[in-house]
Amino acid sequence: MENLVLISEEELRLRCGRLQSLMEAVGMNGMLISDNANMLALCGRIFAGYIWIPATGLPVWFVRRPVELGGMNVVYIHKPEQIPAHLGEEVSRGGFTVGLELDVTAYSHVERLKSLFPEASVANASAVLRMWRAVKTPGQIEMMRKSGMKHAQIYRKVGGLYSPGMTDHELQVELERLSRLQGCLGVFRISGSSMELFMGNVIAGDNADNPTPYDFAMGGAGLDPALPVGADGEEIREHTTVMIDLNGNFTGYMTDMTRVYALGSVSQLALDAHRCSIDICRRFVDMARPGVAAKELYAMAEDLVKERGLGRYFMGHRQHAGFVGHGIGIEVNEAPVIAPRSRDILAEGNTVALEPKFVIPHVGAVGIENTYLIKSDGVECLTPCDEEIVPLV
Amino acid sequence: MENLVLISEEELRLRCGRLQSLMEAVGMNGMLISDNANMLALCGRIFAGYIWIPATGLPVWFVRRPVELGGMNVVYIHKPEQIPAHLGEEVSRGGFTVGLELDVTAYSHVERLKSLFPEASVANASAVLRMWRAVKTPGQIEMMRKSGMKHAQIYRKVGGLYSPGMTDHELQVELERLSRLQGCLGVFRISGSSMELFMGNVIAGDNADNPTPYDFAMGGAGLDPALPVGADGEEIREHTTVMIDLNGNFTGYMTDMTRVYALGSVSQLALDAHRCSIDICRRFVDMARPGVAAKELYAMAEDLVKERGLGRYFMGHRQHAGFVGHGIGIEVNEAPVIAPRSRDILAEGNTVALEPKFVIPHVGAVGIENTYLIKSDGVECLTPCDEEIVPLV
Repeated sequence: MENLVLISEEELRLRCGRLQSLMEAVGMNGMLISDNANMLALCGRIFAGYIWIPATGLPVWFVRRPVELGGMNVVYIHKPEQIPAHLGEEVSRGGFTVGLELDVTAYSHVERLKSLFPEASVANASAVLRMWRAVKTPGQIEMMRKSGMKHAQIYRKVGGLYSPGMTDHELQVELERLSRLQGCLGVFRISGSSMELFMGNVIAGDNADNPTPYDFAMGGAGLDPALPVGADGEEIREHTTVMIDLNGNFTGYMTDMTRVYALGSVSQLALDAHRCSIDICRRFVDMARPGVAAKELYAMAEDLVKERGLGRYFMGHRQHAGFVGHGIGIEVNEAPVIAPRSRDILAEGNTVALEPKFVIPHVGAVGIENTYLIKSDGVECLTPCDEEIVPLV
Repeated sequence: MENLVLISEEELRLRCGRLQSLMEAVGMNGMLISDNANMLALCGRIFAGYIWIPATGLPVWFVRRPVELGGMNVVYIHKPEQIPAHLGEEVSRGGFTVGLELDVTAYSHVERLKSLFPEASVANASAVLRMWRAVKTPGQIEMMRKSGMKHAQIYRKVGGLYSPGMTDHELQVELERLSRLQGCLGVFRISGSSMELFMGNVIAGDNADNPTPYDFAMGGAGLDPALPVGADGEEIREHTTVMIDLNGNFTGYMTDMTRVYALGSVSQLALDAHRCSIDICRRFVDMARPGVAAKELYAMAEDLVKERGLGRYFMGHRQHAGFVGHGIGIEVNEAPVIAPRSRDILAEGNTVALEPKFVIPHVGAVGIENTYLIKSDGVECLTPCDEEIVPLV
């Protein structure tokens, strides 16, 4: 029988212990989670069911599917109503506070879960889980590094995939294929249901200026109004750029990475904006340390952009995004968020995708994106690869 | 300025009118929706924002993003708290019932939306929306037909993509590429957050018997415990089957379709089970009419399976799925559900994916899946393609 928990005992104690410290800090006496991303973060696998996290001690794993999982504290159930019988008496005492994932679980399912704890008060566990997931353990950092190395390898091969007359969509499909053959899982996890993307965003020329409904850094019209983002099937034209921002999910822990390619020469404005993006990334590497406020990092980027007179192109042109970076790991929209009013403070173990980008009319999108690991004494780039604009030939 | 509504006025009146009839039937005086799938179903596009559906008259479109959409009743907002000022006074009168998408919207977002209607009672609109989406309009049926034709064309080319020594994953990647080049949007929409799949499921040989946590008809271990379903990277072996169940989302309206390929000869048991699947589909085509109970169709399938002594392999072997078919359209898990305790009754305009499948140990998965349109006087197959097991050469 296969063990449910797929990480080492040491990793499990580390992950669980940190979550319990955060629970203690907010006075939460137990937590019931079922979100796939939170599950994967705790035990290294996704299963259908629930995890009970007590204030102290090890989790209880309530499994509906798949069959035949084993290990300590694994309990098979058909429905959540069977859970309370397996928990200690303290959950039915007054004053007990149970955390539920109120920011991600559907309203009617939360109502059902609340009824399992009629005597307890219910608290929103989402903020605690967000803080917990933002700090990666050594085991999680290893998964991020592995994704980043594979991710960067794909980008080095873009030139070889291009042939004259190709559309943005055709180039994207060849990149998807290469990436999948190298083991990319494809799936692009985003917290919340309103954001959607297939395997990444490839935007060529003026399509970069088509606004999208989604809250991504860049837009694009997409192939169809049913998925209005990214490549729109237009041929890649001379003197324009192609921005490639493809899914780096090789391990369940994703890296985020963007590079720019150009067909023929592009305008000085585009070159200047791309240089500004690289410079922002370099300053980030110098500045980003545990304890630094995320909004200070946004201000640094904004100041440099203003100094160079590039404000009207920064993070979009017809439509502007309101952030310049975001935490990443199992999902693409983790903490910390690098935005003007962000209250996040950088911590050791954060993994941050920084993406200062510009849309230059009649040229396209420029700028880079790297995933950075925040360490005690510096920053490690998890997506190392040449950052200049690469000619497509 | 581009029009927000992308469907004809006639289609909009039809879609909106039917939803309003269902609202009237349950005493709902207004409805606020923001789920991407429900939005796409109403206006033919996804945008960030909300749609207000009054009991009579046309919807009000509250848009956060993208910029620059126009048309009747389009209102730009920054936050949902701006919505009530644009609605009639009746929403703040006692006795007003407002519908919200309680089965899909996160708990904390629903709490926020409830506070917009302090005098109203809140009802769960999810069941009404599910009934509404289950019946496709002529415009939606046209989109399904288009997806089905393209979907079937892909399956006819599987043999040409196979080369000896290939793994299941490598074959899947070539199919993904072909499908994407033909215009497949890739994204595979599923209602609820616990179900996940990349672009489809390709399962070869005994991997079919690896149970998955997800509620799909078939399993497979997947490449990684971070996405435990489908191809596991094993080489396709002589005397085994490859089941191909790939995403048919070419228009925002998906078809679902499965065919089986085999390397060399396979056991008589596998051939018999595949025949049984085809026979169940034929009986479905004879029986499925408006007014027929979904559970009767499940019973028909189960009876035939028992009659042929194939029960232990039906819908899985180590782990069994509890249904044999499901509605499909914008999402893969729409109504009606063809399951033993389903309360759904077939209606004209339903589109149903029927997938009687079997897992034969040491051979693999067999059986077919087609998407069928329920018409007043019969059934139309939207995924027409040879149904026998196709040799891989």
